[in-house]
Amino acid sequence: MSAQTPQFVELDGRVLPAARATISVFDRGLLYGDGLFETLRAYHGKPFTLDEHVARLQASARLLGIGFPRKAWRRSIEILLKRNHLDDAWVRITLTRGAGRPGPLPVGRQRPTVLITTGRLDPAIAPAQRRGVRVTLVAFSRSGFLGEHKVLGFLPSVLGKVIAKRHHTFEAIFVNGEGYLTEGTTSNIFLWQRGRLITPPVDGILPGLTRRLVIRAAAADGIPVAERPLAPHELREGDEAFLTSSLVEIVPIVGVDAQAIGDGEVGPRTRRLQDLYRQMVDQGLGRR
Amino acid sequence: MSAQTPQFVELDGRVLPAARATISVFDRGLLYGDGLFETLRAYHGKPFTLDEHVARLQASARLLGIGFPRKAWRRSIEILLKRNHLDDAWVRITLTRGAGRPGPLPVGRQRPTVLITTGRLDPAIAPAQRRGVRVTLVAFSRSGFLGEHKVLGFLPSVLGKVIAKRHHTFEAIFVNGEGYLTEGTTSNIFLWQRGRLITPPVDGILPGLTRRLVIRAAAADGIPVAERPLAPHELREGDEAFLTSSLVEIVPIVGVDAQAIGDGEVGPRTRRLQDLYRQMVDQGLGRR
Repeated sequence: MSAQTPQFVELDGRVLPAARATISVFDRGLLYGDGLFETLRAYHGKPFTLDEHVARLQASARLLGIGFPRKAWRRSIEILLKRNHLDDAWVRITLTRGAGRPGPLPVGRQRPTVLITTGRLDPAIAPAQRRGVRVTLVAFSRSGFLGEHKVLGFLPSVLGKVIAKRHHTFEAIFVNGEGYLTEGTTSNIFLWQRGRLITPPVDGILPGLTRRLVIRAAAADGIPVAERPLAPHELREGDEAFLTSSLVEIVPIVGVDAQAIGDGEVGPRTRRLQDLYRQMVDQGLGRR
Repeated sequence: MSAQTPQFVELDGRVLPAARATISVFDRGLLYGDGLFETLRAYHGKPFTLDEHVARLQASARLLGIGFPRKAWRRSIEILLKRNHLDDAWVRITLTRGAGRPGPLPVGRQRPTVLITTGRLDPAIAPAQRRGVRVTLVAFSRSGFLGEHKVLGFLPSVLGKVIAKRHHTFEAIFVNGEGYLTEGTTSNIFLWQRGRLITPPVDGILPGLTRRLVIRAAAADGIPVAERPLAPHELREGDEAFLTSSLVEIVPIVGVDAQAIGDGEVGPRTRRLQDLYRQMVDQGLGRR
């Protein structure tokens, strides 16, 4: 997600100037991280894989007992993008349990808070896709209980991003207590090993929608895909590797801190997947 | 923390009616759970162990790189309690990194958001202290990375409270991936075993200030205290057990769901600690 604060947001169904968009200090999203979010990408003013993002949000909301609004999401997002003069952009949906009586236990029935924000893409993404990036491994993770849900409590990712920035790398990759790579702070990770594509299983990590599209595209292209735990040395010794997320799409990893992966250049297998992904976007595939 | 929404809050140094206290939807506390909180108890309009709570908040803020305001906390809290006509009450301090540009990476220097809220104590606390309570074990936890910090992302505790409520018990106790009891959703846990007091070590769990006071009081009273992992069967087979937190002080546990602990009555050892704690409060001990 990038730089600029957008001019308008949609809050509880109303389009408002950002400066006037405020929530109660008793919103449970603020007080207890009692909510969820989704980040997706818009191309040409249209949200991509919106139905899948909304379905994931709704499934998590159901698990947490957070009310889910009936809402014309696509229409809201398209209107907001237009209002903000955005074409290719990030879109974030934030859903909280709403304001309520203080205390961790939700009492009574809250009206959920629904926020839609949009913004210009980080200009670092396009060169990252072309040239590849280096990543930093960090010895903690957001995995574990609720790790499969995009909950508001995102501090491990915030701290991972701070560490990556300090290392002048593009992304931090979490290493869990068992010593395995799990995911990036805002991405999933893939590795090429002797022609096979390997990615950690969705076990306490976020089931990324781009991850799912890449697995599907690879399988359709005849590439064997394995979901299994990945050790850090495998990443360092891999043939190629890459990150996926709705916002960065497919970003090749060419090094882990100072050490190169493979020959330190973007490899042909990852390029091929980038092309396939681009085709999916262009053809509107992945959209139901 | 209890029921009623207070009439006034202090937000960024200003006392405001609750209905007018709002924060930006770009506050990182909301968007990323990028902040911390403390909950403490006031007696006779005075916050108890305030210095210790502020010190814990400051230590966590330093670790997370969140700015820490210079502030006359005691004065602010006492004024707010008076304004809300509160005498014995809960007090919550919420500190976020503040509003900033969207994206998990904090960019530039944010002005932290500082919120103080207060309210009437849950009327269930006093009878719980007298008669004891039952607890429910839940097979997840908030422990792990950042578990020692009171971060805004509090969903495991929210869900634990929901489960305890469903079981008609007072509190849920987290059981971690290794099968050990860690802490309650908003409390620490202690067990009496053959005259010894046992509590889980501060290893990915919140280092409760009441926990610390109880350990100190027990040691001063000649009671052997061990900090070691506790298995669920030990709780069920224990002589006595209790919960601690700033708000509930010391609450005896007399059962795990349907099963009684000991004879199912509040035991003399826990009563003794309740008396000692009451003396500490009365004497203003534990306050530096």
